[in-house]
Amino acid sequence: MSIAFDLEFTPTGRASEAVVVFDVLRMTTTACAAFTAGVTSVVVVADPDDARAMARDSGAVLLGEREGVALPGFDGGNSPLEAMAMDLRGRSVVMCTTNGSRAALAAAGRHVLLGAIVNAAAVARSLVERAPSEVLLSCAGTAGRTSLDDVLGAACVLREVLALGTETRLSDACRLALRLVHGGDDLLTVVNEAAHARFLNGIGFADDVAFAARANSLDVVPARRGAAPPTFALGS
Amino acid sequence: MSIAFDLEFTPTGRASEAVVVFDVLRMTTTACAAFTAGVTSVVVVADPDDARAMARDSGAVLLGEREGVALPGFDGGNSPLEAMAMDLRGRSVVMCTTNGSRAALAAAGRHVLLGAIVNAAAVARSLVERAPSEVLLSCAGTAGRTSLDDVLGAACVLREVLALGTETRLSDACRLALRLVHGGDDLLTVVNEAAHARFLNGIGFADDVAFAARANSLDVVPARRGAAPPTFALGS
Repeated sequence: MSIAFDLEFTPTGRASEAVVVFDVLRMTTTACAAFTAGVTSVVVVADPDDARAMARDSGAVLLGEREGVALPGFDGGNSPLEAMAMDLRGRSVVMCTTNGSRAALAAAGRHVLLGAIVNAAAVARSLVERAPSEVLLSCAGTAGRTSLDDVLGAACVLREVLALGTETRLSDACRLALRLVHGGDDLLTVVNEAAHARFLNGIGFADDVAFAARANSLDVVPARRGAAPPTFALGS
Repeated sequence: MSIAFDLEFTPTGRASEAVVVFDVLRMTTTACAAFTAGVTSVVVVADPDDARAMARDSGAVLLGEREGVALPGFDGGNSPLEAMAMDLRGRSVVMCTTNGSRAALAAAGRHVLLGAIVNAAAVARSLVERAPSEVLLSCAGTAGRTSLDDVLGAACVLREVLALGTETRLSDACRLALRLVHGGDDLLTVVNEAAHARFLNGIGFADDVAFAARANSLDVVPARRGAAPPTFALGS
């Protein structure tokens, strides 16, 4: 059976049997870090006040950012390294970020996964096991514009899917993305070309950017369990 | 002075001081071929019946396609090689194509140019001479989806702009596109990965595809003179 892959450069809400959301810098990478640190669920909320209320009512850890930095009243920002250093075992997390939250909310599929460079191989294996007829790689972008880091994350997942010998049909957008990982440059070099990487490097998050560019370093697949609000737990 | 470049993968109608429309397979390539063959103006019309009426009333040559082939009552299809072989000296052309016409109609800028791989260097020189503060590279796509050939055309123009030593600010989408021309593959290899190239090769237009992939082979810059309907003439 062949899997048809398409890619959108910014979220459109287009439905697909499986949707993988990419916000490599940094929401989906931070979610992967949080699950690696022992979190049991991540709820994605768009509005900071709603996020504060939900975390207060449920006793969840509240993570998120606006303009790159943690919001007042939040337990932490949107930093994967910060999440890895927190004691999150057995905890639930409410996440509220600028672009990633919107993308996760827009995702419309039977399977909705959070993808990043750090978990590309795990996501690829999960997709092949789920065997959907079609997969939409949904890049979060930044304020409605393409983000190079998200497209690179999608390319890393595609590369791993192809390495598994899976039969695929690839849209032109997927073929364009794959060129990012066939140029011979290391991933961090490509990530650092992204406008948002340059922004984060400039406000002291260069270690987060480097962390986000390490392919297949985390073996977690955040998979949606409930849709309103989008609630993710570890999937296979 | 620095020029800010952005790229859209499908037409959105977003305004920019300068907009370059790319429909490499084949509308903008055919327009370049028609001007090279001596055409004085190209009027772009979306609806085939409107195009027929306009060509009849004005005595223009009527070119265009649906699903790749010429429409009934049209003088020719959307083939650059066919256009090069016709006697078009001093003639006006009405063009009606599936995706390129829509993209040309959506373009909103003080400068609107038709770009392709064949005229990439000429378009780059024209942009630098016009010195807009911002340029939007608008890819026509195919039925609302990204077409690899259009993004490659935009990448060829960007490469020529950079070769001129122009100071630029490039969006992530532009940086992604540029990766297409930095991979070391020849342009026809990349073009032939596009779904629409495979379609055209399959219905007998492989020579048109090869023609469209020849960088800087035509020294023409179709520039918009009037907006409703979009009317193009040779610009500098």
